Amino acid sequence: VRVDGMIGVAVTEYAAGELDADADQPPGHIELSLTVDRDLAYGIAVQAHEAGVPVGLLGYGSSSGEASCLPLDWGALIPLWFIGGQATPPPQVVVITPSRQLPLAQLIDFGRSIAEAAAASGKRVGLIASSDLGHAHQRHGPYGYDPASARFDKLVAEAVQAEDLARLLDLSPRFIESAKPDGLWQIVMLHGALGHTPMCGELLSYEVPTYFGLLCAAYTPADEMLRVGYIKTPPSDQALQCAR
Amino acid sequence: VRVDGMIGVAVTEYAAGELDADADQPPGHIELSLTVDRDLAYGIAVQAHEAGVPVGLLGYGSSSGEASCLPLDWGALIPLWFIGGQATPPPQVVVITPSRQLPLAQLIDFGRSIAEAAAASGKRVGLIASSDLGHAHQRHGPYGYDPASARFDKLVAEAVQAEDLARLLDLSPRFIESAKPDGLWQIVMLHGALGHTPMCGELLSYEVPTYFGLLCAAYTPADEMLRVGYIKTPPSDQALQCAR
Repeated sequence: VRVDGMIGVAVTEYAAGELDADADQPPGHIELSLTVDRDLAYGIAVQAHEAGVPVGLLGYGSSSGEASCLPLDWGALIPLWFIGGQATPPPQVVVITPSRQLPLAQLIDFGRSIAEAAAASGKRVGLIASSDLGHAHQRHGPYGYDPASARFDKLVAEAVQAEDLARLLDLSPRFIESAKPDGLWQIVMLHGALGHTPMCGELLSYEVPTYFGLLCAAYTPADEMLRVGYIKTPPSDQALQCAR
Repeated sequence: VRVDGMIGVAVTEYAAGELDADADQPPGHIELSLTVDRDLAYGIAVQAHEAGVPVGLLGYGSSSGEASCLPLDWGALIPLWFIGGQATPPPQVVVITPSRQLPLAQLIDFGRSIAEAAAASGKRVGLIASSDLGHAHQRHGPYGYDPASARFDKLVAEAVQAEDLARLLDLSPRFIESAKPDGLWQIVMLHGALGHTPMCGELLSYEVPTYFGLLCAAYTPADEMLRVGYIKTPPSDQALQCAR
């Protein structure tokens, strides 16, 4: 669920969804039903509100009980299916929808608010900044072909490898419109979270399996990497120095 | 979908949902897939925004195309199923979720905004102020028994029969909390719409088939009733005089 001009935070008790393969694909079905961490959801919303970011608390069905359940679309269901959703017991989740209408500075503030609330909760929290990249990779895809998609995706991959997501903040609106990414706003949130909790990023894969690009990167808190001796010096606030 | 502290207006291209009978009921299945009248949805939102009512424009799935589809819960699906949703061709819809956190005066303003936008659209528009009434009619129901539910329901029935929904604006918050209605906020929106477009109400039924009360009333624009000679004098702004 998106709310125009604000970042949506679901405060239902549950979140659930299912997805069937398209008719022209091999048969497939996934479904998840997860419990929402409402305390963390409210914690993030309060932090963001205090930072001046417009936040909409989202309900669906009943206000409490089993029927208080956010319907998950593919944008949340697919990453949750691959990252933890099938675990026993499954993790609790907070489902957040960014807004492309807010200035990127507010998405940075929101990302920082996620990290602040996560730290304050004392819980082990993972942030999934899920996002397809450019959508104009194929002439016969639904958005046609635009070379900006490949250029955009390359910039993201380089920014991850350089531990410098900040360079994605200055792309021109026209270029972004041509590249048609879904994920810039989520990546900017991740950048905001990194400003609070320094993490080392690792580019795991980049693929263009269809008309859109997919990049997979893992971020590990820098203090954890220091603790296990994986990096030697604490990262500065300005730029992470992750020696692998 | 509800948004905390604002009235939600869905601006997806479609709205769809399905519902299966509970396991302890005879088998049953309903489903609807309807096109959203986005022009009217934006028209209502703009009117309401100009009236100072906080409005959240809601998206789901894609921002356009088939996958831009609001999932309908029972609160919208059931009334739409019985009122027009099965017609050929089915009507276009605008799905609105009220907020219990706003002052009733803002819900009145929103109702008037619906009527203003409907009139400005030049379309034939019906307003479904769908709402269960008191939910505490049965000792063994999920909300237990409270005599306030029956009292509340009686007040609503009398207000409909007296063509005077305004009397529902002064109920104490404590009484409303005890009566546990779902529908007060939708009825107040209807009251606001009546302030713009006078209509004559007719109480069709009131029943308590389970732990909550259900009231069904039909409202017809007064000028239509005048035109067909069903009423003799134009209704005043203050109170409708509908002689049957």
